[in-house]
Amino acid sequence: MVVPAPELHPGVAVLAPLLGIWAGEGSGEYPTIESFGYTEEVAFGHTGKPFLAYVQRTHAADDGRALHMETGYLRVPAPNRIEWILAHPTGITEIQEGPLTVDGDTLQMDLTSTAIGRAESAKEVTAVGRSIRLSGDVLTYTLAMAAVGQPLQHHLSAVLRRVTA
Amino acid sequence: MVVPAPELHPGVAVLAPLLGIWAGEGSGEYPTIESFGYTEEVAFGHTGKPFLAYVQRTHAADDGRALHMETGYLRVPAPNRIEWILAHPTGITEIQEGPLTVDGDTLQMDLTSTAIGRAESAKEVTAVGRSIRLSGDVLTYTLAMAAVGQPLQHHLSAVLRRVTA
Repeated sequence: MVVPAPELHPGVAVLAPLLGIWAGEGSGEYPTIESFGYTEEVAFGHTGKPFLAYVQRTHAADDGRALHMETGYLRVPAPNRIEWILAHPTGITEIQEGPLTVDGDTLQMDLTSTAIGRAESAKEVTAVGRSIRLSGDVLTYTLAMAAVGQPLQHHLSAVLRRVTA
Repeated sequence: MVVPAPELHPGVAVLAPLLGIWAGEGSGEYPTIESFGYTEEVAFGHTGKPFLAYVQRTHAADDGRALHMETGYLRVPAPNRIEWILAHPTGITEIQEGPLTVDGDTLQMDLTSTAIGRAESAKEVTAVGRSIRLSGDVLTYTLAMAAVGQPLQHHLSAVLRRVTA
């Protein structure tokens, strides 16, 4: 799937600072599981069309086993507005929408799930909130989740640093 | 994101014939658009966990411009049952579920959308059906869609051949 490197679509130019590969560490907690540490790699790419492609994976900090991964696309339907369109191998999809704020070299996205799809075999996830902040070469996020009967609450936080632009 | 090549998880061993890269041609039609031809590349991979990762893209047959892409995961929640968990850069997610039939070197999947997520800015898509057949080194599919006020009807068909295992 090699194609000539296209120009970034002007409709997503505001997201240019995200492009590249990021890596770092995070920690997770939830009332139904033991707390855990993880390492994470994230990549944002583009094809010249008005969206970014996103892929992510995490591994356990203790023994390196594969934990989560997710993939999807970022859209900018209007200035200061962002949508994340996500699929998870856990059998869940998320539509995340919210404000996009740009202030100098800082991007802030505060997302709320407006639709969650769930395969019959998937665990119950009813809401996910994501807060993502890019400041220079540091990308931080927190994720809150309502799942398996628990109310919406903090689940994940991580700090990533730019590996390649 | 280089990791040692793991063993395929036994829970998705039935999908082993899909692994690799596929390429071919298809055609699309819908009452609201002009019919079109396209080329397509599809890749199925895995990480040792009980799912396959899927990514696809198409280009116009006439001028090579990028058309669609989609990504997600395949799950086998029970013998003879398959789930596709998909995200589209058009702002749509799909949960697809249905029977998985294996007969010699032939795999057949007949999928129906059980959930479609839609970002506020996305076009209205209300149902998608996918029929996918793998026979030896040939992968064929048809896709039906109900969208923008039109009833569920044929939209895409394609024939792909194995490029690499």
